[in-house]
Amino acid sequence: MINNEIICAISTAQGNGAIAVIRLSGDECITLCDKVFQSPGNKRLIDQEPNTLHFGNLMDGDKIIDEVVVSIFKGPKSYTGEDVVEISCHGSVYIQQQVLQLITKNGARLAKPGEFTLRAFINGKMDLSQAEAVADLIASTSSSAHKVAIQQMRGGFSSEIAMLRDRLLHFISLLELELDFGEEDVEFADRKQLHDLLNNIQNLIQKLLKSFDLGNVIKNGVPVAIVGHTNVGKSTLLNRILNEEKAIVSEIAGTTRDVIEDVINIEGVSFRFIDTAGIRETVDTIETIGIERTYDRISKASIILLLVDATERKADIEKAIQTVKNKLGDNDKKLIVIVNKIDKLEKGFDVHELLDKQDVLIKISAKTGENVDLLINELLSVVNLSSLEQNDVIVTNARHYEALEKASESLQRAINGLTTGITGDFMAQDIRETLHYLGEITGEITTDEVLGNIFKNFCIGK
Amino acid sequence: MINNEIICAISTAQGNGAIAVIRLSGDECITLCDKVFQSPGNKRLIDQEPNTLHFGNLMDGDKIIDEVVVSIFKGPKSYTGEDVVEISCHGSVYIQQQVLQLITKNGARLAKPGEFTLRAFINGKMDLSQAEAVADLIASTSSSAHKVAIQQMRGGFSSEIAMLRDRLLHFISLLELELDFGEEDVEFADRKQLHDLLNNIQNLIQKLLKSFDLGNVIKNGVPVAIVGHTNVGKSTLLNRILNEEKAIVSEIAGTTRDVIEDVINIEGVSFRFIDTAGIRETVDTIETIGIERTYDRISKASIILLLVDATERKADIEKAIQTVKNKLGDNDKKLIVIVNKIDKLEKGFDVHELLDKQDVLIKISAKTGENVDLLINELLSVVNLSSLEQNDVIVTNARHYEALEKASESLQRAINGLTTGITGDFMAQDIRETLHYLGEITGEITTDEVLGNIFKNFCIGK
Repeated sequence: MINNEIICAISTAQGNGAIAVIRLSGDECITLCDKVFQSPGNKRLIDQEPNTLHFGNLMDGDKIIDEVVVSIFKGPKSYTGEDVVEISCHGSVYIQQQVLQLITKNGARLAKPGEFTLRAFINGKMDLSQAEAVADLIASTSSSAHKVAIQQMRGGFSSEIAMLRDRLLHFISLLELELDFGEEDVEFADRKQLHDLLNNIQNLIQKLLKSFDLGNVIKNGVPVAIVGHTNVGKSTLLNRILNEEKAIVSEIAGTTRDVIEDVINIEGVSFRFIDTAGIRETVDTIETIGIERTYDRISKASIILLLVDATERKADIEKAIQTVKNKLGDNDKKLIVIVNKIDKLEKGFDVHELLDKQDVLIKISAKTGENVDLLINELLSVVNLSSLEQNDVIVTNARHYEALEKASESLQRAINGLTTGITGDFMAQDIRETLHYLGEITGEITTDEVLGNIFKNFCIGK
Repeated sequence: MINNEIICAISTAQGNGAIAVIRLSGDECITLCDKVFQSPGNKRLIDQEPNTLHFGNLMDGDKIIDEVVVSIFKGPKSYTGEDVVEISCHGSVYIQQQVLQLITKNGARLAKPGEFTLRAFINGKMDLSQAEAVADLIASTSSSAHKVAIQQMRGGFSSEIAMLRDRLLHFISLLELELDFGEEDVEFADRKQLHDLLNNIQNLIQKLLKSFDLGNVIKNGVPVAIVGHTNVGKSTLLNRILNEEKAIVSEIAGTTRDVIEDVINIEGVSFRFIDTAGIRETVDTIETIGIERTYDRISKASIILLLVDATERKADIEKAIQTVKNKLGDNDKKLIVIVNKIDKLEKGFDVHELLDKQDVLIKISAKTGENVDLLINELLSVVNLSSLEQNDVIVTNARHYEALEKASESLQRAINGLTTGITGDFMAQDIRETLHYLGEITGEITTDEVLGNIFKNFCIGK
């Protein structure tokens, strides 16, 4: 997969800016730039020290393409591990294109998405989970997602995995020693110690697997479904939360055109508020579609906010709560019932009676914003960020989660084998499988297909 | 106006990219960055050589904001003439904002539009016309506009103006010597030589003024009005030109919502095709509004493309041509009549008879694209780019044009004064006025208001 082609791409955001950066990587990229670069003192880029900046003109023959500043990095001390040049030019789209054309005309080719980072991986500058963290970092929109991505990019997760692999490698070396002496029936590896070790490793893997719930929420945001009768004030509530948090809202078009997600960052966590059609039993077809979608949202959400208006009839409120609770079933979604204008509730009607112990009831005033802070605290209580403070490693990537699950399975077979007294070679096979899956995470074991899938989601220029 | 505040801004285009650049300028900006920068080898930014690159972490206390590469430039050898730092960070909007917050929290303030370039001007790194060229360069979307902006940015126009000023200064010094010896009635300045010199300068200014027509066209594009009866195939023709040129089209919403301009680059020149409502005499009110707008477009266009369909009745074709020609009057707009399906023209009807000598008639087939190349040549003939090839200085800026006009007026008064034998002190005043207006162009004479108007149109970060 390694080759000597020079790749190039615009690495800054698309569109006009004050400046733009075109990045090149490849062993001859400094020589290439030297051919089209003219400095005031006629100095040659190829003669320059690494990590230096050079002002001059990019020339297409006699024609000046732009006045630029060129940054020179020399492999292996560069992002990709190869020689790298970054050209900082004036930021018009026209000039960006002209520079890119000039560079490709002189022998570079356009980089594929993530190809700079792919080269960094191939050249051993980072492992695969670190490379993936680069993409996560660029996509991060909340402080918690940012923090987890930075930690992963800096190798926090990688070193955790490397530690697990090291322990297993030590174990398997003892096992294989036994196999070498197979006829003599010796045991170099104390079975009791080994059993403890494997259990310890399994516990660590389980802890990582468990962290994925939090990791997923951190990376993708907490899905919160807002349900309630039409006109009960769902959008008013959203605006209230917004005002309370002075947050920036972005609208994401859902999979269906009628669902809008508002992503709000609250204390470093993204919450994806999914506004749904009103819940109301009806025979009207269109409304029914809306209700089915509501149920669909509920099934995908971690938190359900059910809004009721105390001025509604008791029977209606009961029905709304019952409908949602039926739909929730036994799974561990959090239901928060929000009653607006609670002082107007029918006498003797205690909404608590309709709820289970773990459900939360909050009385708010959408008009004044009263108690919206209580609601925000309830939302945040679902996401336990305290573990993040302790620099625990969090799994945020579904690919890592799958690999850890498989590693856990084969490790469990080895543990069971120890108990049932399985032969050493079978056990060695299970351990090797565990090592394989752990290696998939960091990219020690990988395929072109896996790499392709990972890097196709990168942006161009990274 | 000069102060020691550190300014900062995101200099790359808005949005997510692989990397983004945050630029700082100000005498203490390296010290500021040093406070929040942590390099692997604990090296200090303040100890580093200019024009060097440094990898490390941006820290907000113990929290890592990002892994970055920092570029260090030291004044006066920097864009602004002051110390400059450029921070290249991961390109997510979230991280860009975090870095900006970190920098401002540590004492920098957000830069105003164009403030980096304003400082470059104030610190004598460029004159005002060069600063204006930076904005033009970033806005350029065609090769000719790009070329003129580059030339102006590199001081081509400035040195032309400086030469004119030098000659006038020499002249005025002789005049003022005479005034010092006023009582003795000596003439240090040979009146004949002076007359020739002033005329030469006036000729140069006139040449510059004349270049503005071309300069304006290069900078803003050639306005081309396409007129013709409804459904005569105006959009088909536009698409034909597009196909012929494989050009990129961008739509610009006109001042009124019903006018769409398609900007097409043909051989380095932008043409702004203004599609208009069909020309047809009618009593219908709405159509009449359309026609008035058509006339409005015609008055603003340099080239009128009138499309007629040979299958139309002769009387209709005659009327369309006559209507447009009446509207054109005597001014020097170019009329190109395009006849589609000319073989189907009524026998004995020669369209040429309706046209003047300078008008152009082209028969095309919108269906096959036949003769569209002839039309393109006619369009290009309006823009004489040959002067651009000779590196002539072109005036593209309305502010420069106005200043040149005023300089020309006062210079003419001086020339007339020489002929009529005006006294030396009056003549000196006219020359000083000329010098003043020439100085306005390069910014030797300027006001805060002028600077404000110029830099408010810059983008942030430049």
